[in-house]
This record gives sequence, C-alpha cells and structure tokens, in this order.
Amino acid sequence: MAPLRVGVVGASGTSGAVAARLVAAHPRMVLAFATSDARTGESVAATLGMRLANDVRFAPNAAAVDHAGACDAVLLATPADVSMRLVPAFVDASKQVVDLSGAFRLEAKEYPRWYAMEHTAPALLARAHYGLPELFGAPPGGSFVANPGCYPTAALLALAPLVREGLVETTGIVVDAKSGVTGAGRQSGDAYSFLAVDGDVRAYKVLAHQHTPEVERALSRVASAARVTFTAHLLPVPRGLLATCYARPRSGATRERIQSCLVEAYGRSAFVRVVPPGDVRLSGAVGTNLALVGAAADGDVVVAIGAIDNLLKGAAGQAVQNLNLMNGWDEALGLEHLQRFAA
Amino acid sequence: MAPLRVGVVGASGTSGAVAARLVAAHPRMVLAFATSDARTGESVAATLGMRLANDVRFAPNAAAVDHAGACDAVLLATPADVSMRLVPAFVDASKQVVDLSGAFRLEAKEYPRWYAMEHTAPALLARAHYGLPELFGAPPGGSFVANPGCYPTAALLALAPLVREGLVETTGIVVDAKSGVTGAGRQSGDAYSFLAVDGDVRAYKVLAHQHTPEVERALSRVASAARVTFTAHLLPVPRGLLATCYARPRSGATRERIQSCLVEAYGRSAFVRVVPPGDVRLSGAVGTNLALVGAAADGDVVVAIGAIDNLLKGAAGQAVQNLNLMNGWDEALGLEHLQRFAA
Amino acid sequence: MAPLRVGVVGASGTSGAVAARLVAAHPRMVLAFATSDARTGESVAATLGMRLANDVRFAPNAAAVDHAGACDAVLLATPADVSMRLVPAFVDASKQVVDLSGAFRLEAKEYPRWYAMEHTAPALLARAHYGLPELFGAPPGGSFVANPGCYPTAALLALAPLVREGLVETTGIVVDAKSGVTGAGRQSGDAYSFLAVDGDVRAYKVLAHQHTPEVERALSRVASAARVTFTAHLLPVPRGLLATCYARPRSGATRERIQSCLVEAYGRSAFVRVVPPGDVRLSGAVGTNLALVGAAADGDVVVAIGAIDNLLKGAAGQAVQNLNLMNGWDEALGLEHLQRFAA
Amino acid sequence: MAPLRVGVVGASGTSGAVAARLVAAHPRMVLAFATSDARTGESVAATLGMRLANDVRFAPNAAAVDHAGACDAVLLATPADVSMRLVPAFVDASKQVVDLSGAFRLEAKEYPRWYAMEHTAPALLARAHYGLPELFGAPPGGSFVANPGCYPTAALLALAPLVREGLVETTGIVVDAKSGVTGAGRQSGDAYSFLAVDGDVRAYKVLAHQHTPEVERALSRVASAARVTFTAHLLPVPRGLLATCYARPRSGATRERIQSCLVEAYGRSAFVRVVPPGDVRLSGAVGTNLALVGAAADGDVVVAIGAIDNLLKGAAGQAVQNLNLMNGWDEALGLEHLQRFAA
Repeated sequence: MAPLRVGVVGASGTSGAVAARLVAAHPRMVLAFATSDARTGESVAATLGMRLANDVRFAPNAAAVDHAGACDAVLLATPADVSMRLVPAFVDASKQVVDLSGAFRLEAKEYPRWYAMEHTAPALLARAHYGLPELFGAPPGGSFVANPGCYPTAALLALAPLVREGLVETTGIVVDAKSGVTGAGRQSGDAYSFLAVDGDVRAYKVLAHQHTPEVERALSRVASAARVTFTAHLLPVPRGLLATCYARPRSGATRERIQSCLVEAYGRSAFVRVVPPGDVRLSGAVGTNLALVGAAADGDVVVAIGAIDNLLKGAAGQAVQNLNLMNGWDEALGLEHLQRFAA
Repeated sequence: MAPLRVGVVGASGTSGAVAARLVAAHPRMVLAFATSDARTGESVAATLGMRLANDVRFAPNAAAVDHAGACDAVLLATPADVSMRLVPAFVDASKQVVDLSGAFRLEAKEYPRWYAMEHTAPALLARAHYGLPELFGAPPGGSFVANPGCYPTAALLALAPLVREGLVETTGIVVDAKSGVTGAGRQSGDAYSFLAVDGDVRAYKVLAHQHTPEVERALSRVASAARVTFTAHLLPVPRGLLATCYARPRSGATRERIQSCLVEAYGRSAFVRVVPPGDVRLSGAVGTNLALVGAAADGDVVVAIGAIDNLLKGAAGQAVQNLNLMNGWDEALGLEHLQRFAA
Repeated sequence: MAPLRVGVVGASGTSGAVAARLVAAHPRMVLAFATSDARTGESVAATLGMRLANDVRFAPNAAAVDHAGACDAVLLATPADVSMRLVPAFVDASKQVVDLSGAFRLEAKEYPRWYAMEHTAPALLARAHYGLPELFGAPPGGSFVANPGCYPTAALLALAPLVREGLVETTGIVVDAKSGVTGAGRQSGDAYSFLAVDGDVRAYKVLAHQHTPEVERALSRVASAARVTFTAHLLPVPRGLLATCYARPRSGATRERIQSCLVEAYGRSAFVRVVPPGDVRLSGAVGTNLALVGAAADGDVVVAIGAIDNLLKGAAGQAVQNLNLMNGWDEALGLEHLQRFAA
Repeated sequence: MAPLRVGVVGASGTSGAVAARLVAAHPRMVLAFATSDARTGESVAATLGMRLANDVRFAPNAAAVDHAGACDAVLLATPADVSMRLVPAFVDASKQVVDLSGAFRLEAKEYPRWYAMEHTAPALLARAHYGLPELFGAPPGGSFVANPGCYPTAALLALAPLVREGLVETTGIVVDAKSGVTGAGRQSGDAYSFLAVDGDVRAYKVLAHQHTPEVERALSRVASAARVTFTAHLLPVPRGLLATCYARPRSGATRERIQSCLVEAYGRSAFVRVVPPGDVRLSGAVGTNLALVGAAADGDVVVAIGAIDNLLKGAAGQAVQNLNLMNGWDEALGLEHLQRFAA
C-alpha cells in the first residue's frame, strides 16, 4: 500500500521539527513537503540531521497550500494566527489535517481574550475534533484535529476520568503545572538564556494563560461546567512537563476508588501508565509518547498528577497518534519504539 | 560589649554549617562551640572553609549540653528527636535557644502522625515561640524559638497577611511548593544522585508531608481554623524554594486590595519584598535572607507566591534573625550583606 | 532466518541496560537472557521499561555460563575481573563474544598497574580483537571483541588517522577529556550526588587513568610507539564525552591536509562525521551512535577533537556495531534510527 | 580617613556589576559614579539590588570622563575598544585606573591579529602593569593596572611558578581551559540559550583565542620565550573556570619538587590555595576570590590545574585586590568575607 504523504508546516520550530522526524521515520508515512519561514531554501535532511528518501528543501509557510496536491495529510506546527489562515484550504481540499496550534481548540468568542485576536475562520470550529484520543476517541469522519496543548494534555489525562465519574467537584479545581523551556512558549531572548533559567524557577502568565479555558472546556465535556485555576511555571530542564492537580472530593472518593478509576480508564491504553503519585516524574516520560498519571486523596482533597514530554505526547507525538487513528491504524505506529531508547 | 557566645549543634549538616558560618561572621556573635556526630574531632574552621578567631574542633552532639556553661545562646540544627532530647537542658539553663528542627512547632498530639514518634518534652511546647518575625514578632521573654520550616516560611509569608485580613477563605487552601535538593530532607542515596535529579521533577510525600499541620497551625493563629493541602516537589537546583498558594477569595478581594494588603504588611520589612507574581523567583532570593512575595486574583481564586533560600530565610538565616531579636538588636545584623553578593 | 539469540551479562548497569534495550529492539536479534546481581529475579521488561516478546527474569551474573547453550552471542557489561572469569567459557563454547570491560584491551603485564590485579585469563588476550571498526575493521574469524573504552573511542577517532598518516609526532600527545557522570566510572556515593556534581567540574585519576595505556596501545598499532598523557574530567551532564587532543605537527601538517586526512578516513563511515572543531559538541552526539570529529592546526600544534555518547558509541552502541559486523550485517543495523530521535 | 571614591565604567555588565557591588560594600571605598550604556538613567541601587549610601543613576559610558573630578579611582569593565578610548583621560588626570578589558595587556603590534583592531593608545602600554599580584606584585607608582583575563589568571597561577623555577620546558605548553557561560565572552543570542548550553560542552575560538598571547607574554616574563597552545571550552554552569595545563618536565621535576614549588610560591598567599590536583574544582572557588591550584607529574609530563571564579579572581575581585594594593592596604580588604558565604 502506498505510504501516506504528509506535509509538515512550520517544520523547523521546536515541535515542528520533532513532527517532521516522526513522519520521516514512520513505517507508513513519507514526508511529502516541509515549510519553514526561518529556513526557506535549506535542506530539510540537513536541518533535521536525518536521512530522507527524497530530500526536500523548506518552502515558505505561505506556500504550504500550493503543496496540497502533493499530500494526503498535513501537520501544522505554526502560531495560531498562521493556522487560522492555512487550515481552511487544507480542509476544503479534503486533506487530513492536524493543527498543533491553539487556533481551533476554543469557541470563537474566547479568542479575543485568550489569544488577543478575532478568530478568522469561525465556521470551521464546529468541525474541529479535540484530539486527546484516550479521552475523546478517534477523530470522526469529516473532522479535522485540533491537537491539544501540552499543559491540557497532562492535566486532563490526570483529572478527566475523576471528573467524568463524579468523584470530584467540577469547580475550584487547581492545576499547578511546571514545564521545561521547550514548553514555555517563545524561547528566544534573555529570559531563556542559560544564565536566566539555570537554577531558577518562576511562574509566568499568572491567571492569564490561554490553556485555562482549554482545560475548562475539555472538562466540561465530560461533566458539568468546570472551573479551573491554572498556573504555569518555567523549570530549568529542556523537556518535560508535570501538572499537579487539586480538586475537592465528592462522597465516595476514597483513595482506592480514585486509583481504580484511573486504572479502569487507562488499563488498555498504549500510552498512559498509572503509577503511584510520587513516581509521576519527568524522567519517566521524556523522550517517549507516554503519559504517567497518579493520584492520592484524603477527606479534603484529591491530588492527581500527570507527566508527559511536552514535545511528544504534548505536541508532535500526539499529532502522529491522531493521524494514525484517522487512517485506521494502530495508534502507536511509529511511536512505540521511542520508549525503548528514552532512558 | 562582650560578643554573644553562640554554640551550634549539628554544625556540619546542610543548615547547621550555614548557621555556623553566619555566627562566625556576625559582628556581635562568636562561635562558642560546634558539634557534629559525623565530624567529631575535626577542625571546624577547616570543615567550614573559613577562618575562626579561636579554632575549635567538633564535639559529638550528645556533648553539647556539657558546653552550656561556655555559651549564651545555642542554635540546634538537628533532627527532631535529637532536638527534643537536647533543648530542655539549654532552656533549663536559661540559655537563648533557637531550634531549627520541627520538634517544637506542633502540638504534642500531632507528633505520632507527622513525625512518627511521641513527643518526649511536651511540657516545653507552651514556651516555644514560632519564630517567623514578620508575622509573629520578636520572641517574648521566657520563650525559646521554634524556627519555622522552609516550606511554611515561604507559604506563610505569601498567604498569612491575606488570611489575617479576611481576604480569603481559610479552608480549601492549596500550597504547591517546589524546592531544590537541600530543602528536600535527607539528601544522600541514589534518589539524590545527579542522574536521578538532573532534568527531573517529581512530587514527594504526597498528602503526608509534616509541614502541612505546621502551615495550618500558623494560619489558624491569624484567623479561624485553616485547612491546607500541601504538596512538595523536588527541583533540579541546589538551593531555593517556591511556594505557589491558592485560596478562594472573599468579597472585596480585588487584585488591588490583595496587593495593598501585602504592601502594608511588608512595607517596612527588612527582608520581605513585594513584587509582581511573575517576578517571585528562586534567583531573586537564593544566597540572601530575602523573601519575595507577590499575588494575583480574579473572581475565582487568589494566587499568592513566595520564594526564599531554603537554607537562609528558610533555616539558618531566620535563626540568626531570631537571635538578633532576642538580644534587642537590628534583625538584619549579620545578614544584610548577604544580598550584596548573592547575584 | 532465525534471529541471533543474544545474552547480556550485567544488564541492569548503566551500559548493560542500554545494551539490552538495543538488542531487544534490533531487527535481527532477540534477547536470549539477561543477568544482574543487583536485580536477580526481577522482570527484565519492567526494569528496562520496555516490552519483550518473551519476558525473562534476571539471573545472577555467575549463572550466565549456564545459559550459554541458549544463546548465539553474549555481551558482557561487567567489571573487568568478572569479565576475566566469564569470557573464557563463552569463547570456549564458540559463542560470539563482545566484552565491554577493560579485561581484554591491554597486555597481561599492564593489568597489575592499571587495573590493580593480575590477569586471570592471559592466554585469551591474543584472540581479543580491539573493536573500533572505523580504525581496525570487522572482527576476524576466531576472535572475540574487546569493546573499546569510552574515552579511547573518542580520542582515537579524532587522532588515529592523523597519527597513521604521519602528520603528527607520536610522542608528547595530550588527551584532555571531559565526560558526563555516566562515563565517570562508579556513580554512587556522595561524590556523584546532585549537590556535588551540579555547577562543578574537576579532574579525576590524574596521571593514573587506565585508559592511558589503552590509547597508547591503539595508537602504536597505526604508527610507532606512541606516548600519551591522558586526563579525565567530570562534567555536570548525564551523558556525553568530549576529548580534546593535542599533538605536535610534522612537516606538511597544514590545516588543509589535516582536514582532508579526516575526511578521507571517514568519508564513507556510517557513524563518524567530520565537522569544524567548534561544532564537535556533546549535543550532536548524545542519544546516537555517532562520533563527531574535527581538527585545526597551526605551526605549533594540531588540535583534534572528538565527541560521542559514552553509553552508545562509547559502549553499548559500539558493541552492537561489532556484533553486526561479526554476523556480516550492515554495521548500522539497529543503530541508525537512534539519530532520528536524538534531538 | 576619607573613603576612596571609585567610579565603575560599564557597571551593568556581568563583571562590571560585580565590581560595583564589591566597591559599594568595601570598608574603605565608596561608589562615586557608575556608567552603563544599556541602563543610562536607571537607579544603580535598584539595578544591582543593593542599598547605596547615596543612590546614583547610570551615566552613559562616554560621560565617564566628565566624572573624573569626582573620583580618586576608576574601574573599567568595558570592551577593549572602549577602554582604549577612555583610559588615557583618567591616566592623564592621575587617577588610579584598573582596566578589566584586554586593551592594555599585549604589545601594540599584536592587537590587529588578536583583537581585530589597531591600538589607539599605544603610548600608554608601557605604563600598564599586568595586575596578577601573586606573580607580579603590587602596581608600582606611576602605573595603571591592566587586569588579567580570566583564563590567563587561572593558567598562570598554576603554571608560572613551575616555569619560573625552570621545572618545565617553556615551549609546547598546552592550556586546556573550561569556563561557565559568564566567562565565555558575549552571552546573548541563541548560542547562550538554556537549550543550547544545558547538557552540552564544546570548544570555541579554537587556535584563535586572544588569551593565547596574554599567557605567552606573562610566562615569558618569568622565563625565556614561552609558547602556549590554548583552548577554551564552554561549560553548562553559570560561573567558574578550570584550566588544565600540560608541560614537559625538565630534569629534577619530581612530583615532590613540583608540589613544594607551588607551596613555596603561595604559602603566604591570601587567595591561592595549593591542594591535590583532583581537589582543584569549580565548587571550591566559585563565589570567592580564591584560586585553587594543584599539580602532578610523571616522567613525561607535568599537569598543573587551576580553578577560579571567573567574575571574582578572574575579573572584579582581582580588580579590587589591585586597587587595595595601589592604596597600600591589605590586598584582601573587602574580599575575604566572600569565602565565608560561598558554600
């Protein structure tokens, strides 16, 4: 069978480069084209440090649509405003689309506040499938994928089963998240120099992070309207993300019930592993598409913790997982070997 | 005036060594004796890497009481069970005592649960002053000082003014704290090797950390009975501690009111600085006796963040600050110069 | 064709665990057995965090020989004294053997000085092939492989082509090497704690490191008797090794000639890449079986620099490369994909 | 006695900020003015995070000379070209001058090659005293101080006594140096981001570093013409520098003789400590004005290692030490307390 021809838009950025490598190494995909405004004209193989069957050069992002005819699917690792401009053409052309930006994760009316812009393609929002397969399944026919944010992925995998089963209150939830520098948004400038980051930790975008409504919206799909406080912190590590989540227990939310809820939710999952809460750590997830989750409870609180690699399960890995599912393949295809070499 | 003769018990441990250095460099103190079970017989000056007017050798901890006659004050940087055994003799001898352990911070009945032992000197608990000067003032006559834990110091400095003024609810408080390895308790063994710590973050003692009741008890002194969920995380940094605290706002808890509450509480403080919440960071506190605090609020939550150096404001620096106050001196004596060279 | 059944002795150690993972993921190998004194009885799959076709449990190292009948080849990642005891039985049984220790890299008379013991299997030394394929080719029939040390691998790949072509003097060579903690020998104890390693750099075993005679012996094979000064330093990084080598130029050793010598030596190599000397860096090699080499020269000196991942090209990766060659396969089989995901 | 009024030019840079803090905290100095092109108009106290008796605002560097009348001495922490322009006016005005740049360390004819410019004040070179007090004593009357580079300071302290006593050959010397990011020159840009530096090590300016002729020139003052190969490496640490030096022994250069040579050279030194070579490490020097040196020897080579804090003994600390000596004070004034709090 012919391999799936996949284009990657924004393929020299942090997530985009990982996505391009995963596609190129995937047993049933081939890298059809790659775009990058920063690297236009350069060799993709040389930039990514890998061998390609057919070496290609980066096109500019704006030229991505010109390549639509040469691909079956496209992954966009671009800023939200760029994705809003580019996604419609690929959807219209009936290509498989996975957008890694936040452009299609919220309702149109939320964009001015959280992304500081009007949504320019609101009609498409209804067709976007929020691509967290362990919670929301495979993308249905006719949909395209809004690939979840890194923080929401970790927080939702830890919390959502407990919310769905009614074990915790849906208001007053706190998500205290910590991420390495590749997960902290824009990474150039003095704020991300070695001197500024090494030995330091700080919160950022306090009470103003755009992943807050994303977590609330996703939790609200599994229960009633959820209210979440979200704080992001910058860690002196290159990769990995930990989300420590707090919720008030409902009656019956014993430690045992909490634990069995997670085990039932993920017992057959290819990528989510339920471990004791003190074993949920960056080092168990970094370099893999795994998510580690664990929880504890006493009478006052339920603590649920999730850890992922922000570039894999939190971005490019999950995008490939979604693309696998769109094609009816094993969701772990091209991803499972990562964990063999992570440590 | 003759300098204050200060003995340091447990002076080769992480906090104890810092305490001994601060004493030896203090303009009105002299290091009278130093004990260490691990270094008995070795030169204090050589071990600490500093010059001493009169070099002394480490005595064993158990011999500390024999040196009571040669000192005016004693700092104990020992495990809680050792402090319980040694403190009574120094108190009985009317020495100034600052105990850095958790031995005298809680009620007697709480020790079996949180410290896994019966309290062996419960009669002394009533005379212990919880030594967080910015909140609870100078130690009164006849008291000795229970020096606060590192996590409680950071959390209380950020939260307590808001609780005291009734701006937040006293139940459902969450303290999500992160500390470098010197603040994470016992530090030897594979769990603290470079390979285990570098690049990693994890929670520990989830819902079982002994600083939970300490924070609750201190908050309950400034308002009604407080309930706190506390989680500690281990960071890949040597020093520094950040506590991100969440509480539900009461009416009137606007962002402006929260801010002015902190500014009023600490406007004349030598060591606490109120900054925007995103500027509360390890790097601003490490190497100094400073605490940085900042807060934000929306309708659902108040977020208050505190940062300290766990070995200084979180341990030895605060102990010297308490000793200064017991002697009627400027609380910053021997401490203020630290911040000149920290960065 | 039936897969090669490979046993790994010492499979829970730093190098041994990587070797076991590489074998288990290799397209033409299967993990036949795995031994570990520290993990005897535990599940290999669980310990290594990977799925195995047939899960096995760790046997004790001493029982390795009992499994000889169930394997075609064996990789030993054991201390030199253990390898001396175990290798003879596997060689006698005509198994393919790759020993990762230093047990078979020197002459018998050198072991008392550099390894503090008499060699217990000196008759086998003549059959040991020093397995650095880029310099010494595939293991000949009837041989077994003494897999090179991590420091010698990096230093020799950078230096040996220049020595072989007579471009530098063979005496007065200096190798100043720097390695992350996994390359620095025994890694437990306070000397390898996060507090001791983070932010620090130091030399160790100054003028007494056992890799000195190994480099000298290997260089002497490509030219006349070489004399090398070798110094190892411990870096605050988990993996990776850089060897900066200095040699006096012979006439004709221009910068151009030096460069072309390296390019000719490695132009068709699967794993060695010639780059400018400032681009030889840990980050280009870690996570892969690659070696980066580069050189510069002026009238006084030739500087040649090599970088590898000490656990892959410096240990387990090179061991699998050697095993591939012993079986007549592409030397990169099971190794080339590593570089796709390294960054 | 009136305190020495000291101006600091370039006082918001990495070295300049440390110099300004040392001056402000010095018992016999007062910060007379501070300049900074990047921070012109901002509060010096706020920028440096310290309290000043008389707060001042940063003037632009070009205005430094206008402040000459208000100072007795000036420290310049400016690029070499800026120092060339500014130093003459201060020397002409008979101010005490310590220049931390490389502007006055070499001969005029060397500047085009190593600093890519013609020297614009060559007449002053003869009056510059190379300010490494342990080797070249106090600045003589009528001189001003060319404060040594960080790498030369560490290398010379380790090597020069051995060269001076004729224990090693003066040609074929190798200095392999490693420094944290504050010592590696310009520190902004992607090359110094956390992602680029953490976990990595690389050489830079191979065979082209401007500290090469500086070391050669200084060594040539204590013996005959010296020839040195110098390589700098960038370490993933914020501060600290290690120089591993290799030289060929002359007859009589036994390990004991080498050791006694260093002990004799530094036995009464306030800042240089002779330790075993494996104990020469960043962590023993960082945060202090100390230099650690140690050496080993066999028949083929002498290895001498030096470690310093590049911002203190390698820059601002040594500048204050030189200023102390110019005023006839104890060289350790205002510096000795640093080591009390370093660890």
